[in-house]
Amino acid sequence: MELLTNEEARLAQGYQAAGVWCGIKRAKKDLAILYSQTQAAAAGVFTKNVVQGAPVRVCREHLSGGTARALVINSGNANTCTGAQGLADATEMAAICAKALNVPVTEVYPVSTGVIGVPLPMDKIRAGIAEALKKLSTGGLLDAAWAILTTDSRIKLASVSFGPQGRYTLTGIAKGSGMIHPNMATMLAFLLTDAPVSRGVLQPLLNQVVDDTFNLISVDGDTSTNDSVLLLANGYAGGEEIDVNSPCYSQLVQALQVVCTYLAKEIARDGEGASKLITVRVTGAEDVTQARAVARAVSASNLVKTAVFGSDANWGRILCAAGYSGAAFDLEKIRVEIMGLTVFAQGQPVPFDEVLAAERLKCPEVTITLDLGLGEASATAFSCDFTYDYVKINASYRT
Amino acid sequence: MELLTNEEARLAQGYQAAGVWCGIKRAKKDLAILYSQTQAAAAGVFTKNVVQGAPVRVCREHLSGGTARALVINSGNANTCTGAQGLADATEMAAICAKALNVPVTEVYPVSTGVIGVPLPMDKIRAGIAEALKKLSTGGLLDAAWAILTTDSRIKLASVSFGPQGRYTLTGIAKGSGMIHPNMATMLAFLLTDAPVSRGVLQPLLNQVVDDTFNLISVDGDTSTNDSVLLLANGYAGGEEIDVNSPCYSQLVQALQVVCTYLAKEIARDGEGASKLITVRVTGAEDVTQARAVARAVSASNLVKTAVFGSDANWGRILCAAGYSGAAFDLEKIRVEIMGLTVFAQGQPVPFDEVLAAERLKCPEVTITLDLGLGEASATAFSCDFTYDYVKINASYRT
Repeated sequence: MELLTNEEARLAQGYQAAGVWCGIKRAKKDLAILYSQTQAAAAGVFTKNVVQGAPVRVCREHLSGGTARALVINSGNANTCTGAQGLADATEMAAICAKALNVPVTEVYPVSTGVIGVPLPMDKIRAGIAEALKKLSTGGLLDAAWAILTTDSRIKLASVSFGPQGRYTLTGIAKGSGMIHPNMATMLAFLLTDAPVSRGVLQPLLNQVVDDTFNLISVDGDTSTNDSVLLLANGYAGGEEIDVNSPCYSQLVQALQVVCTYLAKEIARDGEGASKLITVRVTGAEDVTQARAVARAVSASNLVKTAVFGSDANWGRILCAAGYSGAAFDLEKIRVEIMGLTVFAQGQPVPFDEVLAAERLKCPEVTITLDLGLGEASATAFSCDFTYDYVKINASYRT
Repeated sequence: MELLTNEEARLAQGYQAAGVWCGIKRAKKDLAILYSQTQAAAAGVFTKNVVQGAPVRVCREHLSGGTARALVINSGNANTCTGAQGLADATEMAAICAKALNVPVTEVYPVSTGVIGVPLPMDKIRAGIAEALKKLSTGGLLDAAWAILTTDSRIKLASVSFGPQGRYTLTGIAKGSGMIHPNMATMLAFLLTDAPVSRGVLQPLLNQVVDDTFNLISVDGDTSTNDSVLLLANGYAGGEEIDVNSPCYSQLVQALQVVCTYLAKEIARDGEGASKLITVRVTGAEDVTQARAVARAVSASNLVKTAVFGSDANWGRILCAAGYSGAAFDLEKIRVEIMGLTVFAQGQPVPFDEVLAAERLKCPEVTITLDLGLGEASATAFSCDFTYDYVKINASYRT
């Protein structure tokens, strides 16, 4: 299953995309529309934060219908903690699009990301939507990928083909750089496929894939108010409806795994101020819950992240983080590897070449492995190193 | 109840203290002994991390006897993840002291803090203990306070008098600067009183006070492997045994609260790289569990901490952190204040003077208040801002 990324990624059939600048951000694209030419089945996963952005509330409501025609997304302003006006604004974003596209308002999903607590500049939003709608037919997938970013430095865009003769395409675009932590963070991802996926299958499938991908990344431990992942399947490429018994169901699952894993890694790699991607692989766990808990705690530890920044093979901090993960394990059975070098086993430090370890830790991709020695389950979590630039970016983001 | 700190603090009666340099650290004192001239009742609270330092395991064992004569503490090496040798070394630390002081080994508590995974240099430890024992009689409380520090920049030492005519003294010394997070962090605190506190009272009392003080501070979200708080009461100052029905029980509780709150604040203020102390006060909660959850999440948020560093009144991050704290609350009822300025109320942002807020946020003590508007319970958590220096210190701590 070949993954095409960024400029090479292809848009699934029957979708159109556009991204424009409407003036919320100073000089970068800040409004995108993703449009399905036919009604699509829809599934969504949203932040578990008690404080939720107005658009998240509107999306949840619209999702009860289970169908979608368009997503309208702005960056630069999260429309969160904005009271009744915020809800009205999010609804209006959807309504304007719905009217212009001649689709029900409940099939349009408004999404916002950016600063919290500032009312949406609706005049700009309205003008931006009008402009984006005009550009829909001219192939603006890359523009859309740019328009949803906030502090990201790069776009996150990928596609794969699957099914018989690669009949179907799954396209994913995402954003996220800070406020990134398991259980969804200021992280948006939109997954569009032209496969005819059964409505009943879509939501459980998305839940499963998100738990295994986006919910295993962390940049700073802060779970955001606006996280949203939306999956649309419009069936534009034809064929029989796909459910769990279909021959190509497993390919659909794999396609989602491949695209979401790629996007999750890209979000971690592009974490605010990051210079290195950290991959924490936990094997030998009793169950996947235990594996994920350890992988998440180690990958999210500020002390592990600063050590990786300093190319310091500080395995004590790795064990310490595993120890407070909430997972039970036996220190005598655990084996820890940093960049392929065993540093701890059988309850004891294992002597290793510190110079070699420091050298390997200078790589832009750092891998830490913990084998718990208890069972067969595993999990992989992604994060990034913690640098001066994270502090710099976040000490002055709002101003 | 007057709090005496650092150079002014007094040592409770019947105790002796010493701190020396034995060569674990390059040039700073690194070994301390605290000695009670008579048998003291003892209570302890230790890290909940699954990975626990060898001395923590020895202390837990010794504590089952409920009495103490001495604490022997080294800094610069945590004696953690050091296998069977580590346990033997921790036990030997206690045994050497016990022999020299002619007390049972189970009444001596070994404590270590510092780097993980390196065997204790026992020749240095032995020499250090011998030297410290010689200095016990000459009044080395300040020396001991210095000798337990790691990346701390200042000592944390305080005392109060309580009881009839200030008959009793409670002395507390603590250390902690990184790996600091609720549920005890690389945080040590030793509390010595000459009051005759009943053994049955001591442990529940310590649990209660620790939950309300040391467990509400956070520097970096990393819960350490070696956290220990030990409370000794030797009754040297005489008088009737104090239990929950004694007239001066409430004064004892207050004395512990005052000393532990001071030490907890000092640890947060001296957080690695910190330039500001952050106090997060939560009021109007339904119960104290809810109040603590919100106070801890807000105070520990990397994004709140970087915003405070940048003197940015970014209240959206405060609400966001409250939202993922796990506590349920109603956004319509919450009121948020930053340095006395109301920034959010009744579900809406409240316009405030940004220039004034930025000015106030330049203070070395920053206060954030959240009134949940639900009930009468409250809690206060302490942390510090997140600066470039935190990253600098932790990118190169081990090397």
